[in-house]
Amino acid sequence: MSARADRLARVALNWLLEPGHLIGWEMVTAYGAPEALWRILHDPSCHSGTRNTAAARMRAGDPLQKAEALLDRAERVGARLIVPGDAEWPGQVDDLRTIDLPRGRNHVDRDTRPPLCLWARGSLPLAAVLARSVAVVGARAATEYGNRMATEIGFDLASRGWTVVSGGAFGIDGAAHRAALRAGGVTVAVLACGVDRPYPAGNTALFEKITETGLLVSEWAPGEDPLRHRFLVRNRLIAAATRGTVVVEAAARSGAIQTLGRAHGLPGRVAMAVPGPVGSAMSVGCHDALRHQPGTRLVTGAADIVEEVGTIGADLAPRLRGTTRDRDHLDDESARLLEAFQAGREATPDQLSARTGIDARSTLRRLALLTELGFVTDHDGVYTLARRGSP
Amino acid sequence: MSARADRLARVALNWLLEPGHLIGWEMVTAYGAPEALWRILHDPSCHSGTRNTAAARMRAGDPLQKAEALLDRAERVGARLIVPGDAEWPGQVDDLRTIDLPRGRNHVDRDTRPPLCLWARGSLPLAAVLARSVAVVGARAATEYGNRMATEIGFDLASRGWTVVSGGAFGIDGAAHRAALRAGGVTVAVLACGVDRPYPAGNTALFEKITETGLLVSEWAPGEDPLRHRFLVRNRLIAAATRGTVVVEAAARSGAIQTLGRAHGLPGRVAMAVPGPVGSAMSVGCHDALRHQPGTRLVTGAADIVEEVGTIGADLAPRLRGTTRDRDHLDDESARLLEAFQAGREATPDQLSARTGIDARSTLRRLALLTELGFVTDHDGVYTLARRGSP
Repeated sequence: MSARADRLARVALNWLLEPGHLIGWEMVTAYGAPEALWRILHDPSCHSGTRNTAAARMRAGDPLQKAEALLDRAERVGARLIVPGDAEWPGQVDDLRTIDLPRGRNHVDRDTRPPLCLWARGSLPLAAVLARSVAVVGARAATEYGNRMATEIGFDLASRGWTVVSGGAFGIDGAAHRAALRAGGVTVAVLACGVDRPYPAGNTALFEKITETGLLVSEWAPGEDPLRHRFLVRNRLIAAATRGTVVVEAAARSGAIQTLGRAHGLPGRVAMAVPGPVGSAMSVGCHDALRHQPGTRLVTGAADIVEEVGTIGADLAPRLRGTTRDRDHLDDESARLLEAFQAGREATPDQLSARTGIDARSTLRRLALLTELGFVTDHDGVYTLARRGSP
Repeated sequence: MSARADRLARVALNWLLEPGHLIGWEMVTAYGAPEALWRILHDPSCHSGTRNTAAARMRAGDPLQKAEALLDRAERVGARLIVPGDAEWPGQVDDLRTIDLPRGRNHVDRDTRPPLCLWARGSLPLAAVLARSVAVVGARAATEYGNRMATEIGFDLASRGWTVVSGGAFGIDGAAHRAALRAGGVTVAVLACGVDRPYPAGNTALFEKITETGLLVSEWAPGEDPLRHRFLVRNRLIAAATRGTVVVEAAARSGAIQTLGRAHGLPGRVAMAVPGPVGSAMSVGCHDALRHQPGTRLVTGAADIVEEVGTIGADLAPRLRGTTRDRDHLDDESARLLEAFQAGREATPDQLSARTGIDARSTLRRLALLTELGFVTDHDGVYTLARRGSP
């Protein structure tokens, strides 16, 4: 199968069946995407429910033509498609194939398979950005306390070189994104709609900033609407993409608590919650998780969080590095910085910034990524090419 | 040995060696109190450190004469001595013989043996009062939030028939005691000084109320001062006397956190902490315990607490009942209420109150105790003599 046929088939299947679809994912795993698509469209012996789901959506158009159109649209809006096998693919999301959840009564708890493809906007390479990442999520109707905690945590994580992942919503999500940006760090918004029309519109300025220095990511193709149930489907991706999920504030049985449950169900992910004053409705979900979800860790700030997720870093990071240790897939700025090194010679960020014309803040951010990817080594703020990363 | 000789020797040893003394307790266990005292005073082959400790204290007087004087003083101030074997002895404190603590560097972590004797003021029987009890402890410099939480918890526990145990201090302790009194419940202050001169003096009115409807308890004899290190020695008794310890607010490495550590080290005791706003110095100890002391349970109120300690009630209660199921050791009001029942007939609290002349609140409190002790059975607010408790 050609790479292009695989990409088109994944986009088509994702559109026909919606992300996370159990049987769709199993068929892609068994047959590859093009044959899975062919079977669902043409093989009468194929699972009838899946065929019916696809047939219903096909009234809106031919799936492969639709996929072509979506790829065209993506190009127009500055979005790109990422599929398994791409250097940018964050391999850890494939852990969703073994997610362990309480027996689900609805499709949201059943259709939790890995994404077939991802759409992204922003120049940084997705896998590298997510290699050291933490999800910071919570209530839209956050209190002043919650907003302050999300801001502190987002800022401090970003300052320590961790990518802050969240859902782009009002309240806790937005506070965490904004704080990461303010720290000059990297933040990723994982959306439940097309990356060309991020929701909510009230956060448009925020999304534009994230696109400039971070990433907008979605399983849904450009143009897709943020339908209600999609947020709950999306949450599994936030949990799977990161090393741990922190709920800052949440009402009981809220979306953020559902994300925390996904983290519990995934291997090696740390589920964390920030305590708050008893009596605040927005801390009930956190306290409830700390009481009743065994293994939920209480965290009071970035230091606690790094202590929690750092312990599994040794397990997770090498695998991520393996998928991305390829100079050809670096973003432009990172590649220029790498070329500015002289073999065997130390370089300071200032020197590198001067050699490349890349501003100081971006230089530091790229160096953190290059260090994480194993291309360069950080000696207390002075950098050298790493042996394995050198040409 | 006569009971009187045992009592005098225990008082004398307690005075000579201070409560919790490791070797003193082991010798009493091995030889009985009178012989242990004799050996420490007269046997040159006895552990020299222990002999030296005793010798130093003996400069202040002969230990048995001192013991006689203390018993006289107790009688004058309305206090009584309780020793193992007495119906009132709360057997659960003997669990201190196996307390499991991190290796201690100072005597407070080494001298953690069970009390040799206890002094009490107040008319209720100690073992019965402690059968369903929870310790609610915390910072003296409590915040408004902490005081509110301690008040809610103390009131609600007492309303549910649980005895609220604390240390009589300003702040959290005092708030918990006061709330239990306000709920018409039973509260016990475990002191680090004589029960005739409870500390701090600023809580004198509170201590007087506790004496009327609850109990003041101490390992230190009447007249003894609240020396600084005695509070830390006392804390093990608070943890051992109750089914669980709740820290409402505490700074890092505070006395309340030490009490929580004692609860961790004792079999079946639940260690609990109330969360609070991150950033409040008075919640740091609670959050730290929830993060770093495995098994610490987050609780947000009396319902959570009862859920935690209720689960071990079945284990703990029968043993306590066994030591106290004796009509002769009931307090006056309880005995009168028990006599006011007619065999095989139901009685309401109002009827019993009318028959005995005991006010409604005290009647309810005594009925809760009599129910706990197995003398009467509670059928949704209507009472009968229990078969095993009937004459």
